[in-house]
Amino acid sequence: MNKNLEKKRHSYSHILAAVIKDIFPEAKIGIGPAIDNGFYYDFKDIDVSEDDFKEIEKKMRKKIKEDLSFEKEIISKKKAKKIFKDDPYKLELVEDLDGEEISVYKTGKFIDLCKGPHVKSTGDLDPQAFKIDRTSGAYFKGDEKNEMMQRIYGLAFENKKELDNYLKMRKEAEKRDHRKIGKNLELFMFDEEVGQGLPLYLPKGAMLRKLLMDFAMDTYLKNDYKIVSTPHIANEELWERSGHLKHYAEDMYGPLTVDEKKYRLKPMNCPFHVKMYKSKTRSYRELPKRWAEMGTVYRYEKSGELHGLTRPRGFTQDDAHIICRGDQLQDEIMNALKITKYIYSTLGMEDLIFKLSVRDPKKKEDYFGTDEQWEKAEKALEEALKSFGQTEYIRDEGEAAFYAPKIDIDAVDAMGRKWQLSTIQVDFNITSRFEMSYINSEGEEETPFMVHRALLGSLERFLGVYIEHTEGMFPVWLSPVQAWIIPISEKQDSYAQKVRKKLREKNIRVSIEGINETLSKAIRNGETQKIPYLLVVGSKEEESQSVNVRFRGEEIGEMSIDDLVQDIEEKSKK
Amino acid sequence: MNKNLEKKRHSYSHILAAVIKDIFPEAKIGIGPAIDNGFYYDFKDIDVSEDDFKEIEKKMRKKIKEDLSFEKEIISKKKAKKIFKDDPYKLELVEDLDGEEISVYKTGKFIDLCKGPHVKSTGDLDPQAFKIDRTSGAYFKGDEKNEMMQRIYGLAFENKKELDNYLKMRKEAEKRDHRKIGKNLELFMFDEEVGQGLPLYLPKGAMLRKLLMDFAMDTYLKNDYKIVSTPHIANEELWERSGHLKHYAEDMYGPLTVDEKKYRLKPMNCPFHVKMYKSKTRSYRELPKRWAEMGTVYRYEKSGELHGLTRPRGFTQDDAHIICRGDQLQDEIMNALKITKYIYSTLGMEDLIFKLSVRDPKKKEDYFGTDEQWEKAEKALEEALKSFGQTEYIRDEGEAAFYAPKIDIDAVDAMGRKWQLSTIQVDFNITSRFEMSYINSEGEEETPFMVHRALLGSLERFLGVYIEHTEGMFPVWLSPVQAWIIPISEKQDSYAQKVRKKLREKNIRVSIEGINETLSKAIRNGETQKIPYLLVVGSKEEESQSVNVRFRGEEIGEMSIDDLVQDIEEKSKK
Repeated sequence: MNKNLEKKRHSYSHILAAVIKDIFPEAKIGIGPAIDNGFYYDFKDIDVSEDDFKEIEKKMRKKIKEDLSFEKEIISKKKAKKIFKDDPYKLELVEDLDGEEISVYKTGKFIDLCKGPHVKSTGDLDPQAFKIDRTSGAYFKGDEKNEMMQRIYGLAFENKKELDNYLKMRKEAEKRDHRKIGKNLELFMFDEEVGQGLPLYLPKGAMLRKLLMDFAMDTYLKNDYKIVSTPHIANEELWERSGHLKHYAEDMYGPLTVDEKKYRLKPMNCPFHVKMYKSKTRSYRELPKRWAEMGTVYRYEKSGELHGLTRPRGFTQDDAHIICRGDQLQDEIMNALKITKYIYSTLGMEDLIFKLSVRDPKKKEDYFGTDEQWEKAEKALEEALKSFGQTEYIRDEGEAAFYAPKIDIDAVDAMGRKWQLSTIQVDFNITSRFEMSYINSEGEEETPFMVHRALLGSLERFLGVYIEHTEGMFPVWLSPVQAWIIPISEKQDSYAQKVRKKLREKNIRVSIEGINETLSKAIRNGETQKIPYLLVVGSKEEESQSVNVRFRGEEIGEMSIDDLVQDIEEKSKK
Repeated sequence: MNKNLEKKRHSYSHILAAVIKDIFPEAKIGIGPAIDNGFYYDFKDIDVSEDDFKEIEKKMRKKIKEDLSFEKEIISKKKAKKIFKDDPYKLELVEDLDGEEISVYKTGKFIDLCKGPHVKSTGDLDPQAFKIDRTSGAYFKGDEKNEMMQRIYGLAFENKKELDNYLKMRKEAEKRDHRKIGKNLELFMFDEEVGQGLPLYLPKGAMLRKLLMDFAMDTYLKNDYKIVSTPHIANEELWERSGHLKHYAEDMYGPLTVDEKKYRLKPMNCPFHVKMYKSKTRSYRELPKRWAEMGTVYRYEKSGELHGLTRPRGFTQDDAHIICRGDQLQDEIMNALKITKYIYSTLGMEDLIFKLSVRDPKKKEDYFGTDEQWEKAEKALEEALKSFGQTEYIRDEGEAAFYAPKIDIDAVDAMGRKWQLSTIQVDFNITSRFEMSYINSEGEEETPFMVHRALLGSLERFLGVYIEHTEGMFPVWLSPVQAWIIPISEKQDSYAQKVRKKLREKNIRVSIEGINETLSKAIRNGETQKIPYLLVVGSKEEESQSVNVRFRGEEIGEMSIDDLVQDIEEKSKK
């Protein structure tokens, strides 16, 4: 958020508080910062509902028009305590502050403990650029031991147009919410008795996920990756060795005990792949190894942070590890970039943003690994981007992981939102911790480079994003159900069965629907369910051994079964 | 084991003990029972190694020829204590016995505390029908708090021919041991730091497993099953409800805690599928549901019982649940039988044994569910077998699960061993526990039938069996590596690359090998690695743009690339 807009949002929050104090003179006030898209303010002893929003906005606009100035004053703690003697929360905040001098801001009669900065006067704000949005409960200082206050959220932008844009975007996002679409299309569900953040894929969602997994894995295999498969749990000894227990324990599920040994659900697949690498002596000749696994991992997320598929506790990564020599690193990275581009463009997400994260050259001591390793790896990543033809990329100094540089890739969705999905990371730490090596051409032991790469990233997160990107309208090849056959009356039942059989023989995913509904309702349902092909069969179609085709809302007309199969196969091409 | 053979084996064990007492007069004796394939006896204060086996056997044969009778005597505990005063272990066993009368057996000078029965005299035994086999350590009474004794194992059969047969079989089984083949072919590994019983699939094993999974899942999908996908853990609430915590806890891994709630790794997939079924009201019209999942489950096995892939702690089931109306049950079972037969015959295991387990009609009260449910389900299973044409099956009264009847299917391997792999089980318990229902055609709630079925069973166990069945010589379509290209010299490197590229374009799994070896060694390696196609390329082949083909040890000769591709595709047909 730019500083200027932040000032404005913060100023709106003071105006909100001033208005609330006018309406509820007994109101006690908490804090009121600027936040993404607007501001909020916390109050005690008020009772505001949605019906009051218009009135509050009106009163705020009035104060804006009065052009009241924001006056800063530095006062003593003692004086501050006097000013806020009726506001116990503010009083506590004053107590919490270090030092004897305290800054307050005055706007008309309203005075607030506040560091600022603010706009000069309320007249600098656009009276049409804000909106009271919603309320929620909030503990004072975010501590659930404290009393619950009422938080009033407002939206605020530079001007009305920006506010309207935001509201439009938000409405669009709500319509595209993957949790809503997932429920309507019966793709997946959650169940409290199973546990939070653990998705269960219903048949259509599981098929979608399988088609996506098969596509990704086939792509890797075609690019001479090998598939591997590893367990979901491992002894704590492994996680000690890998460093996860030391550095990553907060994100891991608690231990379970088997034969007096503690095991952990895996949050990552890497240590298993390393174990396989180390199962024998490796020669420079057999490198690179490219080992891919659809690895289901479990990571702890706070229950408040869970969000459908985009933030679950269990998810499957299209994970692979490349173990290679230094002279192979650049080509391997380039190949991973190439595959990423292929996958996303096939899925209809052409707009990618490449971010190269390197170490902060001024703080070399904060990173693990030798200068030689860092220089080699950073050069390999940067040169890979260039030779791949990706001259436009963001280079972030200091954004590298402590264990090596990386390339992260954001996909931009149909609403222009950026989602960090793919990552290609080198790792000097793991090769060292597990003492990985190979025998080089001189017969000496050497440390290989290891690259982690997940291109869809998490299948769950990708699916969540993709459902929102496509609004549930998947390409024909990815559609879990590609066609509905809708018989006009019971008389066409056996013909419908015949059509179904023919399509099923061609591995087309089809079902007979709408038997107890009117034709128009069945078609409407099919469209709501985003079924690409709706195939109506009546006596006319039965006679000519054809179907009447609607494709994505468009009337195509009569087609023979053979032509239909050809059309579906054509449209299913990646 | 038949009673007569058991008597003989037990008698051999006494003869062994008598001989050991002759050789080591200070030896203390433990117990010496008949076991599968022979007998053992436990001793303290002896030192027997493999080198001594011949001598022991010779002395045992001598005693057999002496035709010493086995004389039973009933004596008092007091007298027994006197007899065994120098044998502290026997003394302890005497103490442990209830009652005052104790039976002992005398054979020549040797006397043993023993219930019997035995053969009349050593002359009844075939001096060539036994063999001292191996020794191991064993705690007295199997309790590790007791002292370790030396156990001597012997093999014993009715006659020499049976012994020789057994030895031949065992040698064959050792050669086919999937753990050995798995290591040689680099299919899978275990790692102590990861944990016991948790297989890690190396690239070739993971590809084999994927090909098998894809084959099974494709078969189910073609048969109008739907795929579903569920998490690996669930809240204990779910396992309470399903009854697993009450009845199955010993086979489950211990709990892990998330947000103060206890979770368990899933030992079965069923409760998840039930949850999905119950996510909305179901109508009779939408039944049957056939939901399949490659579900990885974790079950506790004692570490001593773990055995490679055939007895691991984590394994993946080709699991499916069919939820149907009573009038659909028989067809659904028949369809499952049909698919089982198709899968096993495609995999080259034609020999199946069908076992129908029904309840014990005399103990109806021991089973869950109503008479009507049992009668309907038993009839459906039996009729399904018949209408499927499987008139030969074993009918076991009393072998049903407490919750319903079932059909188990044994596959017979190349060595004639039977492996119970497939199961098709009805379940009245789960439909009741989860109050599953559907609305029937009269608009009333009705309880559906639920069928669990796993046809490969556990992928791990199946793979273990299958590796032994095929001796690692998989069908071409299942071979993780289908062909090796072996260039005769470095000059053919680029031609080998060209051949590889052409085959890879056809999705043939091929690699270039043997670069630093002699041709004969490379071919030998390829055959040891059970690679179906070995493609030698020299200057002659490069000139004619062909390859010289060996298929499974047989010299096929020169072939063009196109002909080769066609041949591989032909041989890859299922």
